[in-house]
Amino acid sequence: MSDATTTDLYEVTMALSYLREGMTGPATFSLFVRDLPAERGFLVAAGLESALDHLSGLQVGPEDVDAFAAALHRPPRDLEPLLGLRFTGRVRAVPEGRVVLAGEPLLEVTAPLPQAQLVETYVLNQLSHQTTIASKAARCVLAASGHPVVDFSLRRTHGPQAGFQAARLGAMTGFAGTSNVAAATAVDVPAVGTMAHSFVEAFPTEEEAFRAFARAHPGPVTFLVDTYDTEAGVRVAARVLRDLDLGPGCAVRLDSGDLEDLAVRARAVLDGAGLRDVRITVSGGLDEYAVDDLVRSGAPIDVYAVGTRVGVSADAPYLDSAYKMVEYDGRPVMKLSSAKVTAPGQKQVFRRPGCADVIGLADEPPPPEGTPLLETVMRDGRRTGERSTLGECRERFAADLAALPPAARRIRAPVAPRATPSERLSTLTDHVRRRLAERTAAPAARHGVSEPSPSGSHRSVPS
Amino acid sequence: MSDATTTDLYEVTMALSYLREGMTGPATFSLFVRDLPAERGFLVAAGLESALDHLSGLQVGPEDVDAFAAALHRPPRDLEPLLGLRFTGRVRAVPEGRVVLAGEPLLEVTAPLPQAQLVETYVLNQLSHQTTIASKAARCVLAASGHPVVDFSLRRTHGPQAGFQAARLGAMTGFAGTSNVAAATAVDVPAVGTMAHSFVEAFPTEEEAFRAFARAHPGPVTFLVDTYDTEAGVRVAARVLRDLDLGPGCAVRLDSGDLEDLAVRARAVLDGAGLRDVRITVSGGLDEYAVDDLVRSGAPIDVYAVGTRVGVSADAPYLDSAYKMVEYDGRPVMKLSSAKVTAPGQKQVFRRPGCADVIGLADEPPPPEGTPLLETVMRDGRRTGERSTLGECRERFAADLAALPPAARRIRAPVAPRATPSERLSTLTDHVRRRLAERTAAPAARHGVSEPSPSGSHRSVPS
Repeated sequence: MSDATTTDLYEVTMALSYLREGMTGPATFSLFVRDLPAERGFLVAAGLESALDHLSGLQVGPEDVDAFAAALHRPPRDLEPLLGLRFTGRVRAVPEGRVVLAGEPLLEVTAPLPQAQLVETYVLNQLSHQTTIASKAARCVLAASGHPVVDFSLRRTHGPQAGFQAARLGAMTGFAGTSNVAAATAVDVPAVGTMAHSFVEAFPTEEEAFRAFARAHPGPVTFLVDTYDTEAGVRVAARVLRDLDLGPGCAVRLDSGDLEDLAVRARAVLDGAGLRDVRITVSGGLDEYAVDDLVRSGAPIDVYAVGTRVGVSADAPYLDSAYKMVEYDGRPVMKLSSAKVTAPGQKQVFRRPGCADVIGLADEPPPPEGTPLLETVMRDGRRTGERSTLGECRERFAADLAALPPAARRIRAPVAPRATPSERLSTLTDHVRRRLAERTAAPAARHGVSEPSPSGSHRSVPS
Repeated sequence: MSDATTTDLYEVTMALSYLREGMTGPATFSLFVRDLPAERGFLVAAGLESALDHLSGLQVGPEDVDAFAAALHRPPRDLEPLLGLRFTGRVRAVPEGRVVLAGEPLLEVTAPLPQAQLVETYVLNQLSHQTTIASKAARCVLAASGHPVVDFSLRRTHGPQAGFQAARLGAMTGFAGTSNVAAATAVDVPAVGTMAHSFVEAFPTEEEAFRAFARAHPGPVTFLVDTYDTEAGVRVAARVLRDLDLGPGCAVRLDSGDLEDLAVRARAVLDGAGLRDVRITVSGGLDEYAVDDLVRSGAPIDVYAVGTRVGVSADAPYLDSAYKMVEYDGRPVMKLSSAKVTAPGQKQVFRRPGCADVIGLADEPPPPEGTPLLETVMRDGRRTGERSTLGECRERFAADLAALPPAARRIRAPVAPRATPSERLSTLTDHVRRRLAERTAAPAARHGVSEPSPSGSHRSVPS
């Protein structure tokens, strides 16, 4: 079985229906986040590379057909119209690492309707998850105000795969390292970490533990000093560090207690021992809020290790993302029910100074000082260019972060800029809404009467 | 590279140090959740099968050694002591599906110290994540009070792997189905789902959409009725259902708006059309709180589809889990710093009526009416029995759920039962705490003086 079965069953039933009805005209689906969580002033686009890997590798094989058939309690021959299906469409998307706002398409897929529908679940999963985590990580970097931040999240992310992404996305937003060996190897970010409390406990004394560690690991070490009494632990670490003279780059790590107070005491002990170069790393339940408090306190902390709360984005573990059809066979479409209105048509986002973004139609010219965010990244089911390197993503993020308005950068009570629709998009939205409202109100609607769209490119669909 | 690199770097540095020092005596690590989130009255043990798969498959190969070496900036030959390392230890654990409480070991690993340490990250990740999600899913089943609950979470879980687990763990706690085809195929739970709003939008009218769907899918269908105007959509669905006479098992789905009110209206329309057998399914941002409200309202809802908030356990997306060394080479050990005290020694949990559990030592007899929760599941690195089937896990959960006190079952403001330590465990904890406190206070401690443990099995460790 391939990744083709990692999907919601309804994608399969819909694709089958479309094939049966001959509805294979081009459809465009737009993926965006409706509203930002209250705790977010901006999002960081991520997940695109994983989504493109899925799209370029997708092929419905015989085992997938068997799985679909079993799920539907139907004979495999009923599912054969799906056999061999590949993704042959076009993808326009915001490159990973760029800052995005509510309502802005992160990605638009244009493909024959059954394909565009079938890929919904997987693409939505990757972009939603990775954008959630990248946006959380970005706030940690902001809170640390230039101090290095490292990722310790692997032990409590939602599975090992999510742990890998947490490390990668942290690195994308400027983390200085990760404890995750697999991720460090794969994405070229430094691996960090030295010892746990259990290491100290395995020796008769802290001093023996520290000395044994230094024997096994030439070069700089970090001693964990809070296994028993933290201040005493710092004194032991200082004595061993002075004795062994391990050179620059050594540190002590505080993992519990009042980190602000303990950092002040640890600094005093280290300075008193002439160890001004020995750094202080803190960890233990940290997120951007805690880092912000510690940085503002002026505590003499050098490195912040964040973990679980960042790896699962604890205060906002998901985004209100959507993958909505905005055009089918040349006809702009939208959903009207309740508050969840979706603007119709293929779109472009124009980034303007101060993130005063404009969401317009894909074929309209940029507004003054506006540059488009969405790029064509896949055509005929194939990537149009090289995969982005982590370095490129990091540069995009750093540039966009520097251009964010201060209120969006705040850790507490951030204010997210709002993109505005272009005049052409507003006109189209009003037109399609009126058309649909008339249709659902009129009895004729129940019998299939439709109207051409204002673009004039409407072709009737088989019924 | 194998899963061996899906670990924190410090596991590798510690394992290397232990090997260098000849510290390969047996160590026991205990994995438990320190405190439950305020929103949880109990936990459901999960993740064991994934952890055992990892342990039985673990083997450090040449590529892993290269990755470790690169991460540490050292030549591969320095890492060769790890080459070929496998897990050869013993695991005692609470089987998946059982209810557990704060402080109760979910799993204890006893293995040569370097191995027991190296596996920490992966085992902690799997048990923490899966126990988090299973515990959330269990609350949905409770809230639904006998109505079927199905899983729609795949689109916004933390990656596809997490989506798979959400489906599996939902099924373990009694969900009636999942939208996830891969999971439904792998774990033998029904796949569910029919159409999205985009399907309805792709046709000129709702009616044409519903009729086309029924043409492609013989048998029961679920029509999504809220794409435009919900009540009008129900009327269209009713007409098509009456016309086509599709037999039992059909439904309408409401995915937005005031679900209580809309369900009442939809029921009236369906009943008025003589469609008393057509069921009403609701979805859209549901979790156990929303399900509880809807059930209590008496709304005529038949099936609850829960998604994102359950798949990421939005109100408590992680657990305060720990993997702590409790014994090394026959010596009970514990960590003293701040509030995070860990009780020493190998343990057993005795389940007593009403979840009045006792946490005791592994070798003590059960208290009155107490039955042990931890079983030996791996010996010499090999599983001692068959992998649990989903059905077995489900039965364990159902039995434990029925025995939970009412306050623990509450959706809002639940009260979790607290396990109490046995007299023998309390005595041991006091003894080890005193021994450690004396050691850190006395200057002699700095020079490695230690004492035998009360168990008399203390052997000194190399230093």
